[in-house]
Amino acid sequence: MKQVLLSGANGRMGQVLQKLIAQQPDLEVAAGLDRQEDRSGSFPIYDSADAIKETVDVVIDFSHYSNVPDLLNYCVAQQLPIVVATTGLTEETQMMLPVAAKVIPVFYSANMSLGINILIKALQSITPALEADFDIEIIEKHHNQKLDAPSGTALLLADSINDSCDTKKDYLYVRSGSDLTNDRGQMGIHAVRGGTIPGEHTVIYAGQDEIIELTHTALSRDIFANGALKAALFLADQAPGLYSMQNLLDK
Amino acid sequence: MKQVLLSGANGRMGQVLQKLIAQQPDLEVAAGLDRQEDRSGSFPIYDSADAIKETVDVVIDFSHYSNVPDLLNYCVAQQLPIVVATTGLTEETQMMLPVAAKVIPVFYSANMSLGINILIKALQSITPALEADFDIEIIEKHHNQKLDAPSGTALLLADSINDSCDTKKDYLYVRSGSDLTNDRGQMGIHAVRGGTIPGEHTVIYAGQDEIIELTHTALSRDIFANGALKAALFLADQAPGLYSMQNLLDK
Amino acid sequence: MKQVLLSGANGRMGQVLQKLIAQQPDLEVAAGLDRQEDRSGSFPIYDSADAIKETVDVVIDFSHYSNVPDLLNYCVAQQLPIVVATTGLTEETQMMLPVAAKVIPVFYSANMSLGINILIKALQSITPALEADFDIEIIEKHHNQKLDAPSGTALLLADSINDSCDTKKDYLYVRSGSDLTNDRGQMGIHAVRGGTIPGEHTVIYAGQDEIIELTHTALSRDIFANGALKAALFLADQAPGLYSMQNLLDK
Amino acid sequence: MKQVLLSGANGRMGQVLQKLIAQQPDLEVAAGLDRQEDRSGSFPIYDSADAIKETVDVVIDFSHYSNVPDLLNYCVAQQLPIVVATTGLTEETQMMLPVAAKVIPVFYSANMSLGINILIKALQSITPALEADFDIEIIEKHHNQKLDAPSGTALLLADSINDSCDTKKDYLYVRSGSDLTNDRGQMGIHAVRGGTIPGEHTVIYAGQDEIIELTHTALSRDIFANGALKAALFLADQAPGLYSMQNLLDK
Repeated sequence: MKQVLLSGANGRMGQVLQKLIAQQPDLEVAAGLDRQEDRSGSFPIYDSADAIKETVDVVIDFSHYSNVPDLLNYCVAQQLPIVVATTGLTEETQMMLPVAAKVIPVFYSANMSLGINILIKALQSITPALEADFDIEIIEKHHNQKLDAPSGTALLLADSINDSCDTKKDYLYVRSGSDLTNDRGQMGIHAVRGGTIPGEHTVIYAGQDEIIELTHTALSRDIFANGALKAALFLADQAPGLYSMQNLLDK
Repeated sequence: MKQVLLSGANGRMGQVLQKLIAQQPDLEVAAGLDRQEDRSGSFPIYDSADAIKETVDVVIDFSHYSNVPDLLNYCVAQQLPIVVATTGLTEETQMMLPVAAKVIPVFYSANMSLGINILIKALQSITPALEADFDIEIIEKHHNQKLDAPSGTALLLADSINDSCDTKKDYLYVRSGSDLTNDRGQMGIHAVRGGTIPGEHTVIYAGQDEIIELTHTALSRDIFANGALKAALFLADQAPGLYSMQNLLDK
Repeated sequence: MKQVLLSGANGRMGQVLQKLIAQQPDLEVAAGLDRQEDRSGSFPIYDSADAIKETVDVVIDFSHYSNVPDLLNYCVAQQLPIVVATTGLTEETQMMLPVAAKVIPVFYSANMSLGINILIKALQSITPALEADFDIEIIEKHHNQKLDAPSGTALLLADSINDSCDTKKDYLYVRSGSDLTNDRGQMGIHAVRGGTIPGEHTVIYAGQDEIIELTHTALSRDIFANGALKAALFLADQAPGLYSMQNLLDK
Repeated sequence: MKQVLLSGANGRMGQVLQKLIAQQPDLEVAAGLDRQEDRSGSFPIYDSADAIKETVDVVIDFSHYSNVPDLLNYCVAQQLPIVVATTGLTEETQMMLPVAAKVIPVFYSANMSLGINILIKALQSITPALEADFDIEIIEKHHNQKLDAPSGTALLLADSINDSCDTKKDYLYVRSGSDLTNDRGQMGIHAVRGGTIPGEHTVIYAGQDEIIELTHTALSRDIFANGALKAALFLADQAPGLYSMQNLLDK
């Protein structure tokens, strides 16, 4: 049984992770980190890494991007593998990741959901055979409170497709008019907003009398916690290095 | 058995109609009209209405918008019901329709597909109950040779929804940026283009933890001929007046 | 501001209702009922209706079917409108509803989700025009822990369609073999099971070169609480009688 | 420019192939084979291979399974590559294919559509990572005249998934009852029938709060002719051997 240090233990994702870890046999939360100390629960929550007395095998971080540099330094000092699931890292912090990865195993992915990364794998396996004869478009759907469009994940999918294409495509965010010419050099990306939709992404390949569609549907944001859990299980057995969801999938 | 005069008999839709009419017991093509005379087939095709000698019960027109005024005058003179399935009518020609309809039964619809008109009926039956709590968005998909976006049918659907709303919505053709505010006053309309897709229209109502979607898929453009056939069967028994697909559906 | 008595206040749906009621201005929870008394919260929770001292305008019941008879009697005695959102009522309890409805407003629906009832309305508005020429099939998807198939909601949709058909259809639960004859008298109902899907129902009308699909997707079970809330707002202003979601939608 | 011998030139698929070959620069039909001789067209159609005088680079066969043995022998004798796109081959004829492939390039696939084979590639690339945590189900939709269910293509997809699974799944054709237990060892396969649907296949992977769906939609049966064309272009440059769509995609 591996012992986990959960950074951001009181946050929404931290709480989901507590629940998920409790449900499975190979991991256990030994200690938490959060701004608010709390020693009343089934494991102690500290407000500083220095106070931790428990033995830990792996760290999962779902906190705030400003915490990540200190936590990385702590993990390097303690020789602890770390899953960085916090989003919004500064460029400076991102540059710390490969440096730390020379000493400890570090896991970081642009998207922590297992499903989205599997979708990317599928896109990359089929795009080369479709590129010449099929138009490619993306539709993403999210709740009406989302501030940005298209979603970061839609752009991640588009970039993954483009990486597999010999001829790179331009992204098209508006298609409106009466004298359009659609060439294969454009990839339309459409952002639907409504209600409380957690997130849906569809990639459409449309060719001569046939269409291939790949869709990922999130039913809740818990999938990011689930991905972090998988990452922790994977990372605990690795040598130092920088790992991503694609490594986990290829294992 | 009703006898049909088929205007535009040699065109793509005229040919589909010939096939459809041959397959069913209540109609028969007595004569055709087209630029190219042809008396070698199972019915004569004339290049002018004046030459027609056959007895006719109803006229179906799938020709060119420039033919419609003369044909309407012919039908009025002969007291013949007419289904105008030709698209792109000028405003002037459109104004002729209610005038002719004082004397003869005239059938005209912005979209001749049965399915699209049934979709409109469904939209109108549910929009009032959803308007306050659900966001409404439209996605349409067509082949990559289509010159206009969004499709006329998508706008027809949007207008039908708006007609059922207390608070009218603005149509939104682009959603891109990082500081969006989505209010219920906007209806996003998204145009996907690819391959040879004949036409697909989806209306999405997204609310608190539930989504309702209505989709119409065309598998070929034959559906317009099929709708014209239904219209002719319906029209042959009507009193003078202007009829549309909604009348046919409400019968 | 209407005062609510929440029966089943501590249950999963009771807790969702507490949150939903807190978010909106026209209702307030005055008191709760549950097996476990609890007077420490923002409103008292009693273990018996007789103990309630607060003034109440409407009752929402999301408890256990065995509680419903006593609660109905209490509401009749107190002249209180009641929304019965509890499922699994015995036949005997169901027969009490119209009796109570002679004295007080009673709200009861086979499915408390707004969206499913709106879907039914749409199905009933379009089925008569499609019945003759389109095949009708239903696909439902639910999580892999669901014990029954097809879902009660799928059967409710099928019955609603059949009620709108001149020629009633037989329900078909298996289609397998090499010498099938598909006649329009059968309606296939397909139950997909997987993962944690909260519930998705699709009705497919497939005809000559066109398809109409209507889909309802639940993102969580909260939609039943949301429907009960709408029902309570509606019911508080009604005369005695038995009401359902269809009445609410037709208002 | 490669010269094609088109076997089954007058059949529905033969005619589609004539049109497709005419539209592209690298192939030309030099001669046809069919039961009915016809020397009036742009290329001669013979009723026997022995009569062919034209020089040919590759043979495409879309005829009848009873023709295939003679045609294979002819191709071996003439050292001609052959694309066998005819379906319903007897077991005996199927056993001839690898034998002929020792001498000439032979192309044969259980499904000649490019898109279905690309879908298979995608399924095989992602199934291993999903097998343990996701339920897998298949829905296929076809026109109401189809005699068999599930479709051969649905079974081909199911077998491809199973080939990628450590633990093989049983196929489940009916799910109905009130005391079901869904284990990961079953793969539900659902056959929807309606209207004129040319063919749609969806594979659903449903896991913890996320769903991945892959769909192939055929808009017409022309896709099989299109796949045969691609196969001919591919095959003309190959050494003797037995090739399939998966080889074409992996090139």
